[in-house]
Amino acid sequence: MIEQLVKVACEAQAKETIAARQLVIGIGDDTAVWCNDARVELAAVDSFIQNVHFTLAETSWKDLGWKALAASLSDIAAMGGVPKYALVSLALPGDTEAKDVTDLYQGMIELGQQFDVIIVGGDTSSSPLINISTTVLGSTKGQNLHILTRSAAEPGDKIAVTGYLGAAAAGLKMLGKHLIFDPETSACLRKAFLHPKPRIAKGQLLVEQGVKTAIDISDGLISDLSHILKASQLSARIEVGRVPIHPAVKANFGDEATELALSGGEDYELLFTASSQIVDRVNTKTSLPITVIGDIIADKIGEITLIDKDQKPYILKKTGWNHFGPR
Amino acid sequence: MIEQLVKVACEAQAKETIAARQLVIGIGDDTAVWCNDARVELAAVDSFIQNVHFTLAETSWKDLGWKALAASLSDIAAMGGVPKYALVSLALPGDTEAKDVTDLYQGMIELGQQFDVIIVGGDTSSSPLINISTTVLGSTKGQNLHILTRSAAEPGDKIAVTGYLGAAAAGLKMLGKHLIFDPETSACLRKAFLHPKPRIAKGQLLVEQGVKTAIDISDGLISDLSHILKASQLSARIEVGRVPIHPAVKANFGDEATELALSGGEDYELLFTASSQIVDRVNTKTSLPITVIGDIIADKIGEITLIDKDQKPYILKKTGWNHFGPR
Repeated sequence: MIEQLVKVACEAQAKETIAARQLVIGIGDDTAVWCNDARVELAAVDSFIQNVHFTLAETSWKDLGWKALAASLSDIAAMGGVPKYALVSLALPGDTEAKDVTDLYQGMIELGQQFDVIIVGGDTSSSPLINISTTVLGSTKGQNLHILTRSAAEPGDKIAVTGYLGAAAAGLKMLGKHLIFDPETSACLRKAFLHPKPRIAKGQLLVEQGVKTAIDISDGLISDLSHILKASQLSARIEVGRVPIHPAVKANFGDEATELALSGGEDYELLFTASSQIVDRVNTKTSLPITVIGDIIADKIGEITLIDKDQKPYILKKTGWNHFGPR
Repeated sequence: MIEQLVKVACEAQAKETIAARQLVIGIGDDTAVWCNDARVELAAVDSFIQNVHFTLAETSWKDLGWKALAASLSDIAAMGGVPKYALVSLALPGDTEAKDVTDLYQGMIELGQQFDVIIVGGDTSSSPLINISTTVLGSTKGQNLHILTRSAAEPGDKIAVTGYLGAAAAGLKMLGKHLIFDPETSACLRKAFLHPKPRIAKGQLLVEQGVKTAIDISDGLISDLSHILKASQLSARIEVGRVPIHPAVKANFGDEATELALSGGEDYELLFTASSQIVDRVNTKTSLPITVIGDIIADKIGEITLIDKDQKPYILKKTGWNHFGPR
C-alpha cells in the first residue's frame, strides 16, 4: 500500500517549488526532512488505534499517552534528530471521562518533559474508537544535513542494535495472558511495554560518530531491518545467537524468547549499520550495550538469512523459518 | 474538554526550555506558532472521521482527500500563513481498495498543488473506520511575528467575513437528502461542499493590511465567532440581514437560508475583526466580497446578539433563538 502512495505522491509532486527544492526526505519514510534556511527540520507522525495498536485492558490512559508520543519520538530518534514540539489529534468516544483525557495528556507530558518536548496543539473529535495521532516536529542537532536514513547501508556494514530486545512484546504477552512472574521480572516487562524510552540521545550519538543508516525497532527486528534492506537495495545475514535478548525474556520465555526478540515490536531500540570501526567507536561512547548481530551483504534485495554461530541456517522453532524474503 | 487540556498542558509545560521560550501560540488554538531563528513557524492538525465528519455516501475518496487537507490548510489561512508541507495519518479498514487510497491521495495532491504544498510523510494503520488526520506545516510570509489570532479583537472593531456563507452546508443537505435543483445550482452547492477553497491568499492579505484577529469558518459563523469572543474576552452584535448568504442558498432554501449561513460549517471563509478603516482598506485590495456583518462590543464574554436592521432582536425562525451565550 505505502509503496503505491509513495509512487503517486512522488510523481504528482515532482515540481520546482521552494518546498520541493528544500525537501530532503519526503513520503515513504517515518520522518520527513527538509531544509529551512540554515536548519534541517524533521517531522514524524504515528497513530495509535484502539483494538489495533492497544486495548484499554492492558494499557491505562496515562500509559496510552506515553506510548502514543513515544512512537513518534522514536521516529525522530531514528534520524538522530532533536524533537521539539508535538501536535496531538485525538479521536475519542463521546462518553470518555474528562479524567481519562487528562491522564492521557499527563502521560504524554511526562514523556515529553524528559526530552524538553512541548505539546503545542492538536484537535479533538468524537469517534466510536480511540485514535491518537501524534506529530512530532524537530530538527537536526547541528546545522548540517547529517541525518540517519534507511537507504545508506553498504555491503560489508555490520548490523548492530542498542540495548536489549523482546521485553516489550513479552510485557504485552504477560499482560494479555495474565502470566505470573517474580515481582522484579513482572515490573521490568511491564515497564518495557508500557513506558518505552525513545533513544533520542543514542540517535544523536550515532550521527556524531559517523553512522549513516538506522531505523527504530517499532515493528520488530526482522520487519524493521527489512525496511533498511529494501531502501538500501541490499540483503542481510543475522547470527541469531548474537541477538541481545532481554535477560528477563531469556530467563522466563524459554524457546519463545528468540522469537520475541526477533519479531516483537515496540522496544524502540535503534537498529543501525556501519563499518566495524564506527560501531567500535560508538561502543566506547556509551554505557548502553551496542551489539553486532550480523552483516549487510549484496544478495537478493530485502532478504534476511538467519544463521547460527557455525554459519549454518538457523531454524526458528515456532515457524520453521530460516530466512525472510522481501516484505 | 479542550479548555481542560489547555490548562493541564499549560501548567505542566511552563518550563524555561528553548522550545518553551520560542513558542508563541501553543495548545488551545487551531494552529501552533513558534519562532525558529528568524522565521515564525506554523503547524495545524485536523481529523476527518467516517460517520462523524463525513460519510462515503456523500463524499468520494478523492473529495475526501481534498476536504481533509482543506481543513488544515484553512487553519493556516486563518493565521495569514504560508502552508508548505503536509503529513497525513491514514487509518483505513483492511478491505480498502488500493484505488480508493490512490484517489484519496490524488484529492489531497490536487488541492495541495494549488498552494505549492507537498505531502511529505505520514503513516497508514488499519482501523474499522476511516480516520484521516492531516498536519500542515508552514510559516509566516514575512520574517516578523505578525499573524492573525483569535485573541486580538477590540471593542469597536467591525466584524467582517470574506465571500458568501451557507453553500457548503446547503451542499451537504442537497447530497444527503437527494434534493433536486437546476444543474447550475446543483453544481455550485456540490462544489462548495466537496471542494472548498482555503482562503490562503486572503489570510495573507489580511495580515498585510494590518488585521490582527481572524478565524476560519469551519464549524459555522456563530460557533467560530464565539471562539474569537472567548479568546478576546468580548461579545458581539450581528446584524443578520447583512450576513452574506450565498446566492444559490438564498434562492433555493427559503427560510432556512439564514440558518445555513449562520450555523452551517465548512465554508472555510475567513471571519475577521478590525477597525472600519482597515476593513475598507482590505476591501479595496481584493475582488472577493468583504462584508461587515456586525460589531465587537464589551458585554458578557462570548455572547452573540442577533439584530435586524432596526437594531431590534432578530428571532431565528427555526430555533427561536436571538442570542447565543458563551459555548
